[in-house]
Amino acid sequence: MNLRNLTKYRQACPFLGSNTTKQLSTLSHTTSNGFTSNLTSKAQSCPIMGPAIQQQKKHYASVASKKDVDAIHKNQGVKKSSGGVCPHAAAGIAAAKAAAAAANAPIPQSPPSPSTSSALFNYDDFYAQQLQTKHDDASYRYFNNINRLAHKFPVAHTSRPDEEVTVWCSNDYLGMGKNQIIIDTMKKTLDKYGAGAGGTRNIAGNGQLHLSLEAELASLHRKEAALVFSSCYVANDATLSTLGSKLPGCVIFSDSQNHASMIQGIRHSGAKKEIWKHNDLNDLEARLSRYPKETPKIIAFESVYSMCGSIGPIREICQLAKKYGAITFNDEVHAVGMYGPTGAGVAEHLDFQQHTKTSDAVNGSVMDQVDIITGTLGKAYGVVGGYIAGSADFIDMIRSYAPGFIFTTSIPPAIAAGAQASIAYQKAYRGDRIKQQINSRDLKNKLRQVDIPVVPGPSHIVPVLVGDAALAKQASDSLLVDHGVYMQALNFPTVAVGEERLRITPTPGHSIDAMQHLVRSLDEVWNKLQIPRESDWIKRGGRAGVGQPELVDADPLWTDSQLGLLGENHHLPDIFNHNIEEAKQIATERLQDLLESHADEDIVRIVNGSE
Amino acid sequence: MNLRNLTKYRQACPFLGSNTTKQLSTLSHTTSNGFTSNLTSKAQSCPIMGPAIQQQKKHYASVASKKDVDAIHKNQGVKKSSGGVCPHAAAGIAAAKAAAAAANAPIPQSPPSPSTSSALFNYDDFYAQQLQTKHDDASYRYFNNINRLAHKFPVAHTSRPDEEVTVWCSNDYLGMGKNQIIIDTMKKTLDKYGAGAGGTRNIAGNGQLHLSLEAELASLHRKEAALVFSSCYVANDATLSTLGSKLPGCVIFSDSQNHASMIQGIRHSGAKKEIWKHNDLNDLEARLSRYPKETPKIIAFESVYSMCGSIGPIREICQLAKKYGAITFNDEVHAVGMYGPTGAGVAEHLDFQQHTKTSDAVNGSVMDQVDIITGTLGKAYGVVGGYIAGSADFIDMIRSYAPGFIFTTSIPPAIAAGAQASIAYQKAYRGDRIKQQINSRDLKNKLRQVDIPVVPGPSHIVPVLVGDAALAKQASDSLLVDHGVYMQALNFPTVAVGEERLRITPTPGHSIDAMQHLVRSLDEVWNKLQIPRESDWIKRGGRAGVGQPELVDADPLWTDSQLGLLGENHHLPDIFNHNIEEAKQIATERLQDLLESHADEDIVRIVNGSE
Repeated sequence: MNLRNLTKYRQACPFLGSNTTKQLSTLSHTTSNGFTSNLTSKAQSCPIMGPAIQQQKKHYASVASKKDVDAIHKNQGVKKSSGGVCPHAAAGIAAAKAAAAAANAPIPQSPPSPSTSSALFNYDDFYAQQLQTKHDDASYRYFNNINRLAHKFPVAHTSRPDEEVTVWCSNDYLGMGKNQIIIDTMKKTLDKYGAGAGGTRNIAGNGQLHLSLEAELASLHRKEAALVFSSCYVANDATLSTLGSKLPGCVIFSDSQNHASMIQGIRHSGAKKEIWKHNDLNDLEARLSRYPKETPKIIAFESVYSMCGSIGPIREICQLAKKYGAITFNDEVHAVGMYGPTGAGVAEHLDFQQHTKTSDAVNGSVMDQVDIITGTLGKAYGVVGGYIAGSADFIDMIRSYAPGFIFTTSIPPAIAAGAQASIAYQKAYRGDRIKQQINSRDLKNKLRQVDIPVVPGPSHIVPVLVGDAALAKQASDSLLVDHGVYMQALNFPTVAVGEERLRITPTPGHSIDAMQHLVRSLDEVWNKLQIPRESDWIKRGGRAGVGQPELVDADPLWTDSQLGLLGENHHLPDIFNHNIEEAKQIATERLQDLLESHADEDIVRIVNGSE
Repeated sequence: MNLRNLTKYRQACPFLGSNTTKQLSTLSHTTSNGFTSNLTSKAQSCPIMGPAIQQQKKHYASVASKKDVDAIHKNQGVKKSSGGVCPHAAAGIAAAKAAAAAANAPIPQSPPSPSTSSALFNYDDFYAQQLQTKHDDASYRYFNNINRLAHKFPVAHTSRPDEEVTVWCSNDYLGMGKNQIIIDTMKKTLDKYGAGAGGTRNIAGNGQLHLSLEAELASLHRKEAALVFSSCYVANDATLSTLGSKLPGCVIFSDSQNHASMIQGIRHSGAKKEIWKHNDLNDLEARLSRYPKETPKIIAFESVYSMCGSIGPIREICQLAKKYGAITFNDEVHAVGMYGPTGAGVAEHLDFQQHTKTSDAVNGSVMDQVDIITGTLGKAYGVVGGYIAGSADFIDMIRSYAPGFIFTTSIPPAIAAGAQASIAYQKAYRGDRIKQQINSRDLKNKLRQVDIPVVPGPSHIVPVLVGDAALAKQASDSLLVDHGVYMQALNFPTVAVGEERLRITPTPGHSIDAMQHLVRSLDEVWNKLQIPRESDWIKRGGRAGVGQPELVDADPLWTDSQLGLLGENHHLPDIFNHNIEEAKQIATERLQDLLESHADEDIVRIVNGSE
């Protein structure tokens, strides 16, 4: 919105019209309470916007600017499903449209260009229209202001530091983001190596901590090498686009539920794409068989699909890959740290026993057969960044050719060190992921007991079906405002229309009390908003796996035996505590030599003295 | 390289042939000294590889694996320019090629596929060939192992913690990466909010620190809004690809020297691209005038081109944009923190006086006219991450549509807080960038005095022309090994063939002694390697601006007056110290309310006690 449009909006509004544009601008950039702008404070006395802002402010992001004000005005002015239409906003929009129409007409006082006689393109209108499209189809996103507190995990404060909610949708699945060993490692690294890497990997930004993290990752996945990126979005995009564009005549076979980063990477590669039905091996094979064996092929898929909690049939995909001469690209983003005896993901988990016995690569295991594994340092490992692991030459090729790797500042030393400590800790300690799985199982059971519809699946994700975009948003809002429970509603395009849901991610840090509060809260919200129960979906023939008994029986990937739940003498606290001290020691010592050498007090004093 | 190929290499080598593959693998994953693998240690006794590794090990990355060994073997075996060819490697390569040929032939024991009778594609050979291409054209990159020490800035240790070098090529231009206020802010944030953000901006990863950083950035550039990305590579790629694909019939006019991130973004947009000659306004206008005025157009350019140190004519580009109905996309990555009274970059610098008088947007100023500014938090600001700034609706549109923003974990709270403290500090304090500019000027003068060829330019970058890829690499190696001076050689494709160079980035932290040592070192290396001097280039008619007097006279963007060098009473220490305490206070207090509220000792104790 440029200032001209703002003026038009403002003048059409009897409430804001008495302020000059400059006054409004000043109001939007200043604050009296440190968290909301003065414009927001002022706008709260508007008879139309006041209640809306009050509702928002209670829990939502509100470093308010005139953008917020405009958005609310515009939204209220045109939202078809909304009962009340704000007369100020409606007038403002009419004025803006008239102005836009005028702007698009030829402007006589401007000398005509030699190349054309038409008017200039109106970029501001274009941006506004694009946003209007999002408002119109209800896909416009308002970010909640959620500040996760390390010492109160899984509690966060909202935009008001004294207002706390329990976070039930974070991808910090194991709470490693608040693990004291990670935090201490990062603080030590900050002291020794500073804040940023200072350059690309090629120019001054490649240190021992980067190399050491990559060696840790290669060892985790029992591959020859690994390579770290800014994020796994970048890792997937850069790797698929580089590989797909370089392999001659390459065809990429992509699971229909693949993450946006893979979809972008495939698009950017320019390679031919075959989208196969989610987890459907027959469809995959039918498509693979249509191409000559010598054609380079990549099968791209995930191990845990985070929105539905399904798990890819990795073993069978590897068999098809071998049969048809394809390589496998397995995104383990939601699985690393969470599955397998050392946390290497689902591929490791599928040969649990063998991978428990040795830390070497197990010849012929599923993980050994997967060619390319990608993962993140920002979910179960609690930090940030992404990576790929595979053969030495493959990794070296991506390192040498992928612009998204080459031309970017490398991750800060403290991030690399924190991530490595986290991986080392989770390699040595299974208690966190076991407790997480047990909490997920418990929650699924408790929800089914009160007839809340859980989308069935074998993973740690607990998706709860709502089946309507507006209801899902209302449920999320009501949970936050009325119950202090934060979980984001997931609507189209993240999930299919009609399959809108809440996605719950229990952690080892959620107490029994917190879980009981969650179940009661969901039950109340389901009553209040009249959201369909599981029994309702059964009557309707099922949806998204809910009320479809053939899917409900999917066994959890972590078996009772792997969780230590079998036998009469099992005692969970023993499992949770087993190895924890050893793991702490391993993680602490992993980088100790590097971080504590040169911890030379004299140097510190001299430098401080000379500043 | 798969294990089969490794076996073939190994068997061809009389030195390594006595080890089993498993022994080699174990050697490559174990270490006796904590920094080099046992395989590297063993390989040092090889008559061929020993000297090569010894040379590398002295200063280079060597978390060695069999990849390193193979690379050296292969490289020595085939490098055409190398005098000695390693007989082991040559035999290994011959064996591998025979194996590859055999693998490409039909394999009788494998049942023919219904779709084809040919052999499967050999991915391992393909990766090896791609790497060979890099070796053949000498563009294969070996990363140096450089660990920048916060308390010894600008000194780093190499792969050996006791071996130190002075870094002369980092993009931590102002040494903010070791600034105590940034480090303390990050440590406080780690304690309060933990290591990672835990989710995307939409799901649990949007907190007060992210919003506050974006407000700081909007205020820095005096724009309505800003948006933070994982990196400026991602910011440029995501913004140009989203904008270019959405604006109907968009044409993007891209400076020929634009950074890879912009080139990728333009390619990914699918928009029509017009590449105009570097900084050539006539060429730009000629191209703009070929399109109708109503056609949406983006002019994409940089303010400081980091490889040659040239500066884009931003004011004139904005005039052309206005004339032809284009919007301007100005990458200020190498300029933010470095130019302008508050460090907002070159666009701010061009109206220095006006921007000194007010912190509001200056109507009609160059910065006001630029539509989209992109910048980084990872160079002068010393942390990591990238951003865009512009109108509220433009930012909101990118926020709503760009997959590279939406589908990725947001930056950690500590990164956001550290970056904001850094921006706030540099807004209030000019001493660092003034001292940096004075050091750059001094260095350019000192180098010219000893006839070292400096590529002329008005910016802080000091490129030194070598003019030959092999010589540039040798110069870089000799500086590191013989003089303890680290600067990376820049070869094709980063710079044009024949314009290979060293790129020096002096900081405020480089002492006069360090600079004198640098100049002496360069002088000795120039003698030793017989690299052309400035006087040689003049005789040859000049190259890359060296020995081309019309370019040498480009005035530095920071004038004497702006640097405080005019007048009889100027006293540089006063300038450096002016405001520094105030700036420290401002930066410390910026986030104090947030970071120190809830610093509740009781909570900490309870949580620790219950763990």
